[in-house]
Amino acid sequence: VIDFRSDNTHGASPEILEAVMRAAAGTSTSYAGDPITARVRQRCRDLFETDLEIFPVVTGTAGNALAIATLTPPFGGVFCHEDAHILRDELGAAEFFSGGARLIPIPGNDGKLTPDALSAAIRDLALADPAMPACLSLTNATEAGTVYSPAHLTSLGNVARSEMLGIHMDGARFANAVAATGASPADLTWRAGVDLLSFGATKNGALAAELLIVFRPALFLKSLAPRWHRSGHRLSKTRFISAQFEAYLTGDLWLRNARHANAAAQRLAEGVAGIEGVEIIREVEANVVFLRLTEAIAERLQKAEILCFDWPIFGENAYRFVTAFDTRDDEIDQLLAILR
Amino acid sequence: VIDFRSDNTHGASPEILEAVMRAAAGTSTSYAGDPITARVRQRCRDLFETDLEIFPVVTGTAGNALAIATLTPPFGGVFCHEDAHILRDELGAAEFFSGGARLIPIPGNDGKLTPDALSAAIRDLALADPAMPACLSLTNATEAGTVYSPAHLTSLGNVARSEMLGIHMDGARFANAVAATGASPADLTWRAGVDLLSFGATKNGALAAELLIVFRPALFLKSLAPRWHRSGHRLSKTRFISAQFEAYLTGDLWLRNARHANAAAQRLAEGVAGIEGVEIIREVEANVVFLRLTEAIAERLQKAEILCFDWPIFGENAYRFVTAFDTRDDEIDQLLAILR
Amino acid sequence: VIDFRSDNTHGASPEILEAVMRAAAGTSTSYAGDPITARVRQRCRDLFETDLEIFPVVTGTAGNALAIATLTPPFGGVFCHEDAHILRDELGAAEFFSGGARLIPIPGNDGKLTPDALSAAIRDLALADPAMPACLSLTNATEAGTVYSPAHLTSLGNVARSEMLGIHMDGARFANAVAATGASPADLTWRAGVDLLSFGATKNGALAAELLIVFRPALFLKSLAPRWHRSGHRLSKTRFISAQFEAYLTGDLWLRNARHANAAAQRLAEGVAGIEGVEIIREVEANVVFLRLTEAIAERLQKAEILCFDWPIFGENAYRFVTAFDTRDDEIDQLLAILR
Amino acid sequence: VIDFRSDNTHGASPEILEAVMRAAAGTSTSYAGDPITARVRQRCRDLFETDLEIFPVVTGTAGNALAIATLTPPFGGVFCHEDAHILRDELGAAEFFSGGARLIPIPGNDGKLTPDALSAAIRDLALADPAMPACLSLTNATEAGTVYSPAHLTSLGNVARSEMLGIHMDGARFANAVAATGASPADLTWRAGVDLLSFGATKNGALAAELLIVFRPALFLKSLAPRWHRSGHRLSKTRFISAQFEAYLTGDLWLRNARHANAAAQRLAEGVAGIEGVEIIREVEANVVFLRLTEAIAERLQKAEILCFDWPIFGENAYRFVTAFDTRDDEIDQLLAILR
Repeated sequence: VIDFRSDNTHGASPEILEAVMRAAAGTSTSYAGDPITARVRQRCRDLFETDLEIFPVVTGTAGNALAIATLTPPFGGVFCHEDAHILRDELGAAEFFSGGARLIPIPGNDGKLTPDALSAAIRDLALADPAMPACLSLTNATEAGTVYSPAHLTSLGNVARSEMLGIHMDGARFANAVAATGASPADLTWRAGVDLLSFGATKNGALAAELLIVFRPALFLKSLAPRWHRSGHRLSKTRFISAQFEAYLTGDLWLRNARHANAAAQRLAEGVAGIEGVEIIREVEANVVFLRLTEAIAERLQKAEILCFDWPIFGENAYRFVTAFDTRDDEIDQLLAILR
Repeated sequence: VIDFRSDNTHGASPEILEAVMRAAAGTSTSYAGDPITARVRQRCRDLFETDLEIFPVVTGTAGNALAIATLTPPFGGVFCHEDAHILRDELGAAEFFSGGARLIPIPGNDGKLTPDALSAAIRDLALADPAMPACLSLTNATEAGTVYSPAHLTSLGNVARSEMLGIHMDGARFANAVAATGASPADLTWRAGVDLLSFGATKNGALAAELLIVFRPALFLKSLAPRWHRSGHRLSKTRFISAQFEAYLTGDLWLRNARHANAAAQRLAEGVAGIEGVEIIREVEANVVFLRLTEAIAERLQKAEILCFDWPIFGENAYRFVTAFDTRDDEIDQLLAILR
Repeated sequence: VIDFRSDNTHGASPEILEAVMRAAAGTSTSYAGDPITARVRQRCRDLFETDLEIFPVVTGTAGNALAIATLTPPFGGVFCHEDAHILRDELGAAEFFSGGARLIPIPGNDGKLTPDALSAAIRDLALADPAMPACLSLTNATEAGTVYSPAHLTSLGNVARSEMLGIHMDGARFANAVAATGASPADLTWRAGVDLLSFGATKNGALAAELLIVFRPALFLKSLAPRWHRSGHRLSKTRFISAQFEAYLTGDLWLRNARHANAAAQRLAEGVAGIEGVEIIREVEANVVFLRLTEAIAERLQKAEILCFDWPIFGENAYRFVTAFDTRDDEIDQLLAILR
Repeated sequence: VIDFRSDNTHGASPEILEAVMRAAAGTSTSYAGDPITARVRQRCRDLFETDLEIFPVVTGTAGNALAIATLTPPFGGVFCHEDAHILRDELGAAEFFSGGARLIPIPGNDGKLTPDALSAAIRDLALADPAMPACLSLTNATEAGTVYSPAHLTSLGNVARSEMLGIHMDGARFANAVAATGASPADLTWRAGVDLLSFGATKNGALAAELLIVFRPALFLKSLAPRWHRSGHRLSKTRFISAQFEAYLTGDLWLRNARHANAAAQRLAEGVAGIEGVEIIREVEANVVFLRLTEAIAERLQKAEILCFDWPIFGENAYRFVTAFDTRDDEIDQLLAILR
């Protein structure tokens, strides 16, 4: 069995496991009052080069929904890509946490929004009374395996700011975006206008660890902190999430893991070039590869116990292959051998 | 420093840490489709001697709020003790998850409800239109450190059933209740009428692991499963919660830990008998001890860095001491030495 | 000034006003326990040829949102036309009342859904986790001024039933649909599968009167009745809504008013045939006429104080003209004179 | 039959009915854009001697719940009297509209809160995490038939303001409070700190008309206006509510009606003085009289078809008698004759 279904089917980096072990010694103030969480907060301030506050949680859905509820009143509209995870995969988490906000899907090439499409969607909203414009939610790296540049994000941020929208970034694969662009975390977030970032580690070598990062704490803490608590996402032993992040951000483990996964995806993308019956559907910029395969090839994969997901929203015979922090070169090569 | 603030300030049992390590190897189906979760489900069926379904989550608040939302429509009333965690400590989680249900506090001695008090509260609700009777939520071991017997639970369950109420049990310290009563898990839950149990491990040696157990799956799954997902409590790597539970339920670790904590509380309770200026406020049946202390004694504790919480709802100069799976006899003895 | 902006800018039928006057005499049991409401309930049972329950409310939004919340759990999906009032004009009422359900827009010619489009939308929903299929909401007469036939509704109802969807009908202009089709109220509703009907009178000569009609009371009352109360839509003096309906349903006032409005729309549609610079955009089947006008004509209308709404979702230079129970022939003729 | 069940079982003042008739002529901008609503807005500004905004609705529950949702975040606490209508009679409307806020009941003599009791409740809330202090809701005239003076309100307002609470007043019987105290509407509301007033007319001679009055529009409109719309309480023909209020506020009809009802209650209170077997339970300050009656007397009332409600929360054999704008002296005298 080789598993390309998702980066969340993989295990955890040894450094992260060791950090969890160490954190288990002794007693510690609960509900995020512990010293490990304090150190992670400071580490994030350094990494993002700004003041910020952190809310450790265990799922991307929690981070996303808490962020959207903080930026969006119950009668607000949230602009997002039509393939966005918050729209398609979270069973109405955004609606639940916000008290009934409306997600407004926007089409876009390769998983990315354009400033023009965003402007048009904002204008369309004003033609009737579906919702009040409130929030822009972006995913980076995107659900299509592509990556926003700082310049692209800034141009979207400018549109959003001029319409008084708050900005959320779903960074379930934020490390992959930083690794792919080489841009600074600051340039990919608050310098482009992002207010709240769901900074994921789970898909990149953690057990279950996400940080909801608040870049303008004075504006958002009063609303966000109680929502974190009452949604059941404030762990008594938060230190065990923070310990994962401390290891994640130490010695650039997060970037090493992401670079590894991105490189594996590139190896796959380069390997399939020229193979008959295999078509790359979306540009490969991070750690996700979408391929259109003939049925014969798809059957060979199944027989060889190569696991991947079919991806019908990208058309017929579309499949998604995700590489991870621990995907090995020989696994890619075995996959390529079968595709050929 | 000796820490009696809460059982959730403590770390984790080595067996549980090792299980998490082991679970990190290889890839596994995400979102609770993994084999460890399957084994835990079966283990729970054996332990509770009935069919059931499990929803692994990371906080008691999540389990409680999901359970209450499943049993209670938005216009429903939830009867609970006036000291209940769901009422006092979860910042409206029950209201949030249910869409605005009403918690109905009921007074009761030693943290426990009586059938008469419950009946009276149900009758009172019918005098006006505050909410429609829907749910009974019980905590065992209680917030007052006491324990319900199977007979007591059954008498409450009979009242609730005759009024068509669903029954939830907050079992953040369920292991302590089983250890204290010697009753079977089945007798303390579904045989007494409990529909959903928040079965906690976090306070008793786990990192962050709770199981929401559904005793009548056919009735409740359709509503509960999507709520679990959209509340952000369905972890992609659920196996890491399940691994904790597998270790917890292996070789009776859960009961050994609970017995240890309960015994430490007894050692404390017996030790303070006869000390001047120290009064035991609530009967000590599990792992929580409430003491009324003179101010002089309280100051001595503080100076000695003995940590505990003051507990003003139990009157002036009231303090809570919680013992844990790893509280040592010498820690109790040091505390006693200072109290004397 | 001649007003074609909406049927809700018009006043009230004298019969309805007189009924309100009469209802003001004496005292009466409040909260819908009065005899007028009882008579209207019986009248509706006769009219719809079935058992049913009624919930008088004062807005279509209230009726729609209560219906959808009754048929749809918080995690449910509601299929509706992309132009549906519930989607575009109610500022998230459906999301609010349901606790965060998702509206799923479906494209369709002339405001109507097709069974194939509905089936496709249900299938698409299953590709990911946006929401659980729960409800179909239809509008008749539609927002495009067209009308569903009983056969069309039955074919949609069959698809919905086979997928276990509840069915809601927004009948803000139900009278216009009955008048246009000549079909029986039963054939246009429960015989085609409709569970709950928002039966409007406000747009057709009432002051503010809508009935939420429940065709399968045993299934839905327990959830609907408390929602009606807690949403603030259970009037203490409900008799004043019911009085309007009693007059509305007496001597076929509702159909006479609707036939009048429909005929005025036909007069307009026939009158514009062949006028250069005027294009009928949607088939005229009820009391709403959509016209595409040259800018010169639009300016002439404005100068002549002929009021109508521009309707940009139907393309450039699109305008909506609504006729009402009291629109006069000479008003249509004046409009035609200016259009020519 | 003589009806003392509630002021909401009564009909409507002729002046109000005539105003509704008149308003039915011609067409008018819908959704509160009409000239009658504009005149009522101005009339309220004059009456309350300040800038303000109005939201016409048809029930007190709607006004109350919209106000509370505007002042209270989903995780907020609302302090109110333990007999408050919002707590006991609205089936969780406040929880529904706010997204899950918590009502905090405070005991108090004669339906009124004291500043000390309010301060104590605010302090108690801080002992745990049930909710964040957000709102104070007062009823005037109270549910006990008593009346707050401006000085009393100011002392409560000062406590609330010092704790940053928003203040809502349930004025279902506001006219009765103004009539009873002789104080100015301004002194009874915003000068004492009230932010939002549910100003009722329904119980005092209207068909169904309440104004939610916003005293600090700049602070609250952005949140309130969309809630009004999405809750289904923004009537297309709002002019028919406004017309009722225009008549209500013309020639002091509102005060004349209230003085009449208050005088009838006084006549009753004075008449029962000294009757054996009849005890006045609460001080009679407005138009509600609570009497404790022997069973023999209660039976005589029933036999004579004198309608009233039993009121068990005020103890055994307690009954409520409400007088209205059209209660006649001879009706009071007949009641007295039977009580004697």
